[in-house]
Amino acid sequence: MTKTGAPATPRRLLPDAPLLVAARGERPNRLPVWFMRQAGRSLPEYRELRAEQPMLQACMTPELACEITLQPVRRYGVDAAILFSDIMVPLHAAGVGLDIVPGTGPVVDSPVRNASDVMALPVLDPDAVEPVAAAVRLLVAELGQTPLIGFAGAPFTLASYLVEGGPSRHHERTKALMHSEPEVWHALLGRLAELTLTFLGVQAAAGVDAVQLFDSWAGVLSERDYRQFVLPHSAWVLAGLAGTGLPRIHFGVGTGELLGAMVQAGADVVGVDWRISLDVAAQRVRAARPHGTTVLQGNLDPAILLAGWPAVEREVRRVITEGGAADAHVLNLGHGVLPETDPDMLTRIVELAHSR
Amino acid sequence: MTKTGAPATPRRLLPDAPLLVAARGERPNRLPVWFMRQAGRSLPEYRELRAEQPMLQACMTPELACEITLQPVRRYGVDAAILFSDIMVPLHAAGVGLDIVPGTGPVVDSPVRNASDVMALPVLDPDAVEPVAAAVRLLVAELGQTPLIGFAGAPFTLASYLVEGGPSRHHERTKALMHSEPEVWHALLGRLAELTLTFLGVQAAAGVDAVQLFDSWAGVLSERDYRQFVLPHSAWVLAGLAGTGLPRIHFGVGTGELLGAMVQAGADVVGVDWRISLDVAAQRVRAARPHGTTVLQGNLDPAILLAGWPAVEREVRRVITEGGAADAHVLNLGHGVLPETDPDMLTRIVELAHSR
Repeated sequence: MTKTGAPATPRRLLPDAPLLVAARGERPNRLPVWFMRQAGRSLPEYRELRAEQPMLQACMTPELACEITLQPVRRYGVDAAILFSDIMVPLHAAGVGLDIVPGTGPVVDSPVRNASDVMALPVLDPDAVEPVAAAVRLLVAELGQTPLIGFAGAPFTLASYLVEGGPSRHHERTKALMHSEPEVWHALLGRLAELTLTFLGVQAAAGVDAVQLFDSWAGVLSERDYRQFVLPHSAWVLAGLAGTGLPRIHFGVGTGELLGAMVQAGADVVGVDWRISLDVAAQRVRAARPHGTTVLQGNLDPAILLAGWPAVEREVRRVITEGGAADAHVLNLGHGVLPETDPDMLTRIVELAHSR
Repeated sequence: MTKTGAPATPRRLLPDAPLLVAARGERPNRLPVWFMRQAGRSLPEYRELRAEQPMLQACMTPELACEITLQPVRRYGVDAAILFSDIMVPLHAAGVGLDIVPGTGPVVDSPVRNASDVMALPVLDPDAVEPVAAAVRLLVAELGQTPLIGFAGAPFTLASYLVEGGPSRHHERTKALMHSEPEVWHALLGRLAELTLTFLGVQAAAGVDAVQLFDSWAGVLSERDYRQFVLPHSAWVLAGLAGTGLPRIHFGVGTGELLGAMVQAGADVVGVDWRISLDVAAQRVRAARPHGTTVLQGNLDPAILLAGWPAVEREVRRVITEGGAADAHVLNLGHGVLPETDPDMLTRIVELAHSR
């Protein structure tokens, strides 16, 4: 029995799944490819299904989350499903008042800005995310040989939403708290790390085959600040998952300068956005962990998918070539699929990747 | 006579102005300090003066632009004035329909998305920015020994606003145009480079002592794309100014990976945001231009100015120390002053910089 009260799902064995082979630093028999935000607004079948359903409600409805997760797997034949969820789900499930406002993003009822706000943050009861575990179990039964990636937002990115009260361009309140009250900051990130690990632990017990830690906004920090104020907490989460044996993917946007630190936090695979090439990324990861494997995920610019197939094909071929500098490469975008993307573009990318 | 019909202002000679000494790669007798967006919403005297005056109208009213430019010089004793203007001013003056919408930013009436849109772009008549030249002449007469920095937006950043139609998070239409129709793209940037050089030429003739080219959004590009699609046009602008003898500052946000390229575009001083430290930046600039001077501007995180003086003081001291790795350093923020900044914080930073 797991903490959720549901029996732990026996782990599927997928020794040859290209994503999982690559995550071990080995060369799979085909280049694995999936897309961040592959399930979502770019798909007509998604828009039809979500209709007026609020985001958080959709994430907490197992059959719906399962179906949305499966849509891009059916359509594209990608090498991984990524659980349809949102980084705010565990905070919502724990009882933090928030909403995902269409066109805006997460909006928090009461921003967290001082020690008492931090102390008042609720702890996540694993039972509160049982609907997510249920979605994972449904998916594992449906997915056949395709691995399922679970995910969570990293403590820093969650903290930014909590402190700012919503999306932020400059993250100024977050940085001000970090630098003015480091004890409060570390208490906040410690609590968020615990929540994140609980959430990923539930997903692991329910049967996901890999996990991705999204530190979407880490790229707004200097490496010095990242190492001092963020890395220890992300490292705690990633270390807490080591016992599961699941590959851990660690991703942020604009984090070229932080790749070494993000690997040292305990990642098996590191996500790279489009700003640096994968051969440069491979050098940085090797320098940071000379005796480990260097596995990169990325790094097509999602904006280029709007430039028509000749440009996209050129970029895909370049990214695949540069990815050869790593021990293994998981083809992906450098950030999520943009809503206005033509799904056929993704179909063709998968075909191209698999034809090699 | 200049192209504007006004007599060229005889250049002031400010051989000992710390900013200009530093720009030559020499060590001035005190550390020069100024702040991007030092004139603006953080100042009560600015809010009082601007009141309901629309932004573009304020920029085109010489006495008002002069007074707003002088406010932070009086208050802080900074080592440079920066002309109160907006990167959209030359487009507006040329006749492109646009507005600066409070809380949003520049909004363009008819986005530029194809060859005929590009061909329809008006050319900037220098007379159309005569109010800006007039503001410069007023300032030169008022500023005494304090240099005046003129500025313009770089072709890429202007193009992004024109193509997207306003501020953009992903710059997807801009990147799509760049990659799908490179001839149209280069025609667009060529025209914007011409407009930018005309605008800076007017400022130079009117008497500014240095110029800054703001490529605010260049950091969304890979170095490959920057070198192919942007650098030639910014280089054309900067080369066109070489004859003026004015120091050329080149700045972007999130451009740590692009510093070498931005220096190679023809900058005397390169701006650095807070994401990389100045000692790392100095290495990158030296590697890109081994036989030139290495002069850096930056790189305090503007968000940290909200963290209280002990944190700010610590950061200022660190930045000054790391700036010692360059041939010369101009203390500044890594991006503009945030509106909610306490002006006293800037006063204390100037005092600290000048006390050393």
